[in-house]
Amino acid sequence: MTDTWLNKVNWTHDGLVPVIAQDKDNGAVLMVAWMNREALKRTVEGGEAVYWSRSRKKLWHKGEESGHVQKVHEVRLDCDEDVILLKVEQIGGIACHTGRHNCFYQKLEGQEWVSIEPVLKDPAEIYRVAQAVVSHQDEK
Amino acid sequence: MTDTWLNKVNWTHDGLVPVIAQDKDNGAVLMVAWMNREALKRTVEGGEAVYWSRSRKKLWHKGEESGHVQKVHEVRLDCDEDVILLKVEQIGGIACHTGRHNCFYQKLEGQEWVSIEPVLKDPAEIYRVAQAVVSHQDEK
Repeated sequence: MTDTWLNKVNWTHDGLVPVIAQDKDNGAVLMVAWMNREALKRTVEGGEAVYWSRSRKKLWHKGEESGHVQKVHEVRLDCDEDVILLKVEQIGGIACHTGRHNCFYQKLEGQEWVSIEPVLKDPAEIYRVAQAVVSHQDEK
Repeated sequence: MTDTWLNKVNWTHDGLVPVIAQDKDNGAVLMVAWMNREALKRTVEGGEAVYWSRSRKKLWHKGEESGHVQKVHEVRLDCDEDVILLKVEQIGGIACHTGRHNCFYQKLEGQEWVSIEPVLKDPAEIYRVAQAVVSHQDEK
């Protein structure tokens, strides 16, 4: 099986492409992250979103710690072939590390940015659970 | 009136921010483009999307030629403050220069990218109208 479909993407000079994750059910734009070739290949093969973390400089299987994985239902490419759109099922209903449904919770009202989306789960709790899982795995 | 709200945005080292335009009515992700401070300021003040064209290196009032302007209903910022989401009314129902409703018309099916959205208006026709308007303006 060749991966010629990956060549269709106009990768940046760093070998990345920006990716929008959209909730397939309610249409909300959940988040924007980045992928390299390997991340996109794994995403398509595994059916769950795998990004490239620019800060940690490694592949990042979204939800691997929090459990909030993204099941991929559609992969789209734009006319310039330099942005990807994923339509996903957001497990747990939380895409943002702040514990909100999505990352776009700051709305401009006049001259002010106002947080208008509720925190569904305390990030400390998300991390506590994640940490417990990691600790448990470490013990094995 | 100060513009301190513009300082909240984490601009790239080139002074830009990626912007997602989403159809406020059907939730479709229409396109991704870029803004600088001036573009975002004009967008908010004028109520229609103004982008920064990286290829032409100038402000680009979306729809100024085609008539397919975007009326801005909401401006959102993500948790990292480095991506903006606009909820817009897409005048003419066409956001893409290919004459389609939106730019994300290529869908990955197996190992193939397949165009799945119809061309609503021949781009040549969009340009012909635009050219006629420009020519008319030139005559003034």
